[in-house]
Amino acid sequence: MTRSIVHQPDPRLDLVLERIVDVPRALVWTAWTTPEHVKKWFTPAPWTTVDCEIDLRPGGIFRTVMRSPEGQESPHVGCILEVVENQKLVWTNVHAPGYRPSSRPSDDSCVALAFTAVISLEPHGDGTRYTALVIHGDEGSRKKHEEMGFHDGWGKALDQLVAVVRKM
Amino acid sequence: MTRSIVHQPDPRLDLVLERIVDVPRALVWTAWTTPEHVKKWFTPAPWTTVDCEIDLRPGGIFRTVMRSPEGQESPHVGCILEVVENQKLVWTNVHAPGYRPSSRPSDDSCVALAFTAVISLEPHGDGTRYTALVIHGDEGSRKKHEEMGFHDGWGKALDQLVAVVRKM
Repeated sequence: MTRSIVHQPDPRLDLVLERIVDVPRALVWTAWTTPEHVKKWFTPAPWTTVDCEIDLRPGGIFRTVMRSPEGQESPHVGCILEVVENQKLVWTNVHAPGYRPSSRPSDDSCVALAFTAVISLEPHGDGTRYTALVIHGDEGSRKKHEEMGFHDGWGKALDQLVAVVRKM
Repeated sequence: MTRSIVHQPDPRLDLVLERIVDVPRALVWTAWTTPEHVKKWFTPAPWTTVDCEIDLRPGGIFRTVMRSPEGQESPHVGCILEVVENQKLVWTNVHAPGYRPSSRPSDDSCVALAFTAVISLEPHGDGTRYTALVIHGDEGSRKKHEEMGFHDGWGKALDQLVAVVRKM
């Protein structure tokens, strides 16, 4: 296998959530890559994740369906780019499965919130150093994602993930 | 390594150039993945490829600079997605290197000619079955690419590649 690239966050374009969590790395990996578990933690409450499909290989689907407290569902289809078991998961919403470019409306929203997520896990004592790096194509997308509550949202989701892992 | 996905072309969205060429697969691979060679064949004459940079691994850069007969240069920056030596090369212009979503103008051009290219090589006698599958996000992009002369352009470039391989 070819060597993996090293991701260098760009503070102007990227968002990072890094935290030490006191659950084992292999279980964090399982929680991130198994639809049954993802449904339990992926969306901060009171939103829920009502469906999830993962084909865990480069080019495979990463699909979630979120439901608002009012019952409105929004599907999100992405594509997995890299899989290094227990270490790194990369996926993006810029591609649909099979690396097909995502079809986007031809207006200003075409670049809004296009991102790639790099989830990195490193052992840290008995726990895990968890890093979510979210890469955007321009400063506007990074800002918009930040204003939509990236840190709070991804942080709450991680709290939920840890709670799920504790019950495994 | 995880198993690779099987690409199923969709005639509505994708373009395919498939041809048997009488040069060995390993040399076709070298011609596609070495900047020094790519510069000699990548752009149909009288256009030329005046620069090329390849970091041959998932997330690595795939950059070319084309020059028109009038001397106007156009740079193209893409990202490599999959590398299976002598068999499959996948790259896209939807991502810049490091899987960063490409920054696109927020008008109709935002989805124009976004594509992923899957170059597949299979042995065929002493030669090679060469397949270039070009995947688009919507029918309009596929049509536009076809009208811009996809089959003629990629076909001529392949002729040039074969000529380069014969001199290796």
